[in-house]
Amino acid sequence: MTDPNRAPARPVRAARTGGLVRVVGAGLLGSSIGHALQGLGVDVALADASPAQLRLAIDYGAGRAARDDDRPALIVVAVPPDVTAEVIERELLAFPGAVVTDVASVKLEPLHALRARGVDLTHYIGSHPMAGRERGGAISARADIFIGRPWVVCRDEETPASDLALVEGLALDLGAMPIELTPEEHDRAVALVSHVPQLVASLLAGRFLDAPDEAMNLAGQGVRDTTRIAHSAPELWVQILGANAGPVVDVLDALSADLQGVADALRAPETPGARRAVADTIRRGNDGVERLPGKHGQKRRFEQVVVIVDDTPGQLGRLFGDLGELEVNVEDLRLEHSPGAQFGLAEIGVIPGIARRAVDGLEARGWKIASTSLD
Amino acid sequence: MTDPNRAPARPVRAARTGGLVRVVGAGLLGSSIGHALQGLGVDVALADASPAQLRLAIDYGAGRAARDDDRPALIVVAVPPDVTAEVIERELLAFPGAVVTDVASVKLEPLHALRARGVDLTHYIGSHPMAGRERGGAISARADIFIGRPWVVCRDEETPASDLALVEGLALDLGAMPIELTPEEHDRAVALVSHVPQLVASLLAGRFLDAPDEAMNLAGQGVRDTTRIAHSAPELWVQILGANAGPVVDVLDALSADLQGVADALRAPETPGARRAVADTIRRGNDGVERLPGKHGQKRRFEQVVVIVDDTPGQLGRLFGDLGELEVNVEDLRLEHSPGAQFGLAEIGVIPGIARRAVDGLEARGWKIASTSLD
Repeated sequence: MTDPNRAPARPVRAARTGGLVRVVGAGLLGSSIGHALQGLGVDVALADASPAQLRLAIDYGAGRAARDDDRPALIVVAVPPDVTAEVIERELLAFPGAVVTDVASVKLEPLHALRARGVDLTHYIGSHPMAGRERGGAISARADIFIGRPWVVCRDEETPASDLALVEGLALDLGAMPIELTPEEHDRAVALVSHVPQLVASLLAGRFLDAPDEAMNLAGQGVRDTTRIAHSAPELWVQILGANAGPVVDVLDALSADLQGVADALRAPETPGARRAVADTIRRGNDGVERLPGKHGQKRRFEQVVVIVDDTPGQLGRLFGDLGELEVNVEDLRLEHSPGAQFGLAEIGVIPGIARRAVDGLEARGWKIASTSLD
Repeated sequence: MTDPNRAPARPVRAARTGGLVRVVGAGLLGSSIGHALQGLGVDVALADASPAQLRLAIDYGAGRAARDDDRPALIVVAVPPDVTAEVIERELLAFPGAVVTDVASVKLEPLHALRARGVDLTHYIGSHPMAGRERGGAISARADIFIGRPWVVCRDEETPASDLALVEGLALDLGAMPIELTPEEHDRAVALVSHVPQLVASLLAGRFLDAPDEAMNLAGQGVRDTTRIAHSAPELWVQILGANAGPVVDVLDALSADLQGVADALRAPETPGARRAVADTIRRGNDGVERLPGKHGQKRRFEQVVVIVDDTPGQLGRLFGDLGELEVNVEDLRLEHSPGAQFGLAEIGVIPGIARRAVDGLEARGWKIASTSLD
């Protein structure tokens, strides 16, 4: 096993988070929080129902094992959705001096469950870091998964300001952007931008099961992108979708009506208004997709430079060596490479204002530029 | 304007395509075919209803202007779907000695239109290269867009073998893989893997229009991928969807039933069987997405090596220099880079069997490996 470098060296800076942080649940999110906090010099005590998972997380450096005499200032509950409410209650009772937050991807259901149990929720603040990886578990944890990502914090009127500061400080320490939403706002938002997209990708990919092989051979990059998240694990998604069923159903019903509208238009494409209905569907999609924030949740877009590279080892080395000498930092990068072709295309993203210099410098060094976003 | 290098130098090889090729329609596909054929030394005569578009294509080197005394062996009709049948008829009548093919993305409707006009279709073979770019027009044309892509060829019982050889030879010369399908098979296949994915992405993105800004701020990479193709141009898609309405409606109706099924399950998530229905949706998606061919239409998958790189100019140069010295060819590449982090992740794809050597060699040279597909 290679060194995963989970707590990379950073410039020394003071962590907002002080004291001991207790992390309950040493899976992907809990362990990643542990790695990030340890990297900032914060003491992390880990607990997990699975001794094997806990040992793994500790071996990888996510924190030390929790002890009975721990006096945590902040507790992060990072357990599966179906046990979140129960664990939050237990932690609130066991550590009356601590602020308890959780990272579950649905916020209203655990709150209702806690209220139904009559738990005093003064020192509970639900939260949800919009971060993750395709693979789960302590073994996949990484200190940097929160950087630049939104971290939803659900305060209410009773939340003490000092409690809120603790949870928002945690988010900021991990490089995330705290966003205050009510649990209802949060659940409706993730239904639209996360849960329904997951279902749509899964439903579309499910349609491939009956298709002949020849049909699948025609698939290109478009449908691959549209269905990429259909690879997601069923176990977790059944819990998430079940816990956020109401808001998900609202979006599904609206989408279903839209879908039937365009199907009806295509059933009689020569009817007056039918083509306009189809065009409106595509045009509304054009407008809607523009509302998505840029990569890393920011509006900033990179300028693109597409360079032709010969398909031989060492060519990319020469290209990036030249970019280094030109002091052009590569923010984003994609290699398009076709078997059988003697060359590939390196699509390089640079911060706005740099592309012209990159193009001029590369051309002066003999590189062929296929296209740029400056065209 | 930089040199677009549209007909890159290749090892000299004999083109299967001989004689003169007439390309009618000098947009993205027509001009790209022109560039590729010219690169192989084949004479290309271009025609376009728009003198401006024609001049642009010729200026960029896609071919010469068509002349009245041209005697083409092969004619490629690459005009918008709504005029395809009319242009095919005109070309068949004007050049009785030539084989005529087209590149329209729907195959049955132009065939029906031609039959309704009573045109002799002996020397017409419909085809559809599964290639394109996000931007259109002669200015975006590139010789390499067909490489490794499927090129559907629709022969029928009357098609002379020598005519078929001409069209399949064109596809092979351009680096594409000819796939013989009936027009019906083609249209059903593209409805499933291209036209409905387009509509689904557009419909989902259209739902964003009513969402509050805070909801959109929570969007991540998953929904961005799912809706990427919602950027597509309405004009072209209205034509394509209208021309392939029947097969598209069949897939939409099946998808709509699936969608309502999962919505009904979520309406009463505690009902026996409801959670299983949701799990089956995700699981069927898992299985369906596995049916997509790999990048470039091949089943081959790359092994992944994820390397940690410092976020400074020159680091990527050093990495690819080392990979070159290790004689590891990079097939696929993605850079994950978070603003504020002192490092990024270079996800490198290599052909199967090479990852172990890449990892060992890179570690020996001091690189940190974040993860590999060998884990």
